[in-house]
Amino acid sequence: MLEYKDFEEKTINRKELFKGKIIEVYLDEVALPMGGTAKRELVFHHGGVGIIPITKENKLIMVKQFRKPLEKVVLEIPAGKIDPGEGQHPEKTALRELEEETGFTTEKLKYVNEMYLSPGFSNEKLYIYSATELVKVENPLSQDEDEVLELYELTLEEAKQAIIDGTICDAKTIFAVNYWELLIHQNEI
Amino acid sequence: MLEYKDFEEKTINRKELFKGKIIEVYLDEVALPMGGTAKRELVFHHGGVGIIPITKENKLIMVKQFRKPLEKVVLEIPAGKIDPGEGQHPEKTALRELEEETGFTTEKLKYVNEMYLSPGFSNEKLYIYSATELVKVENPLSQDEDEVLELYELTLEEAKQAIIDGTICDAKTIFAVNYWELLIHQNEI
Repeated sequence: MLEYKDFEEKTINRKELFKGKIIEVYLDEVALPMGGTAKRELVFHHGGVGIIPITKENKLIMVKQFRKPLEKVVLEIPAGKIDPGEGQHPEKTALRELEEETGFTTEKLKYVNEMYLSPGFSNEKLYIYSATELVKVENPLSQDEDEVLELYELTLEEAKQAIIDGTICDAKTIFAVNYWELLIHQNEI
Repeated sequence: MLEYKDFEEKTINRKELFKGKIIEVYLDEVALPMGGTAKRELVFHHGGVGIIPITKENKLIMVKQFRKPLEKVVLEIPAGKIDPGEGQHPEKTALRELEEETGFTTEKLKYVNEMYLSPGFSNEKLYIYSATELVKVENPLSQDEDEVLELYELTLEEAKQAIIDGTICDAKTIFAVNYWELLIHQNEI
């Protein structure tokens, strides 16, 4: 069994390429454990949350939105970036995004998982929560000004069909649908 | 129901920030559908594959490796980037990566899914395949020169425990473990 030192790539030099609002991009030169050096292209991101909101009728609330990198409109679970100040409390981000994007809140927010989305080049981490016993908020927090969102409620069968036809096509949402199906199999919902 | 034009963000200006081997980074100025403009930070990537290799003993073959963006060693399913020329045939990439990283090949490679990993800023798409009826290759393709890999075979329970303790922490691998569990629930494996 190899040890940490057999794997570790130490940074010899780091070059800043871009410092944006969402991402920072760096080019590292690293010392390889077997000798020699290599380049590593790195995207740093503050992380985000995804919420799996399930209604009393056992439907999943989803958000339709335009994604510029894909140049298309897709269906996703509600999600958003962790704001500065929320860093140690992603559950606050989850409740804020749930309210902003769906108009619902809950006292039953449950931590599901956390995952790095693309560890080959990015440190973006997503915290996933489920939300049940949803309550409509009278005057909900407003959505981000530069986003157009449309809400949908899907049954499990509809969500699985949307994965097959490609309307649902992102990792966190496919994860959410699988997670929901496993909950149903295990009679936990 | 909103139409495509109600969502679409048209690019007014695109600025190239970085053109690397793995990623290209752009800053777009877009016209918002409700009027006004916004900036979009974009990372373009050629996409990759992930393989879910399941042995005759019903274990999942995984790869331990160092991930520079995370500065840690993690367990992942075998995966890799689509090379130029493989673009239209991600199943070729899957067989190549399976052989390079595990020394196995198969005639039972099955398309599972495709997913965008981080559609908020990146177009990186991952094609997922399962691989069963694995056959050891006599003189397998060699690994990438700048990678140190260590192979593991995990039972479902071990894989679920590795998710809980954080050794498995990336989206595609967590997806793979859930997918495998669903197959077992449905008696398809």
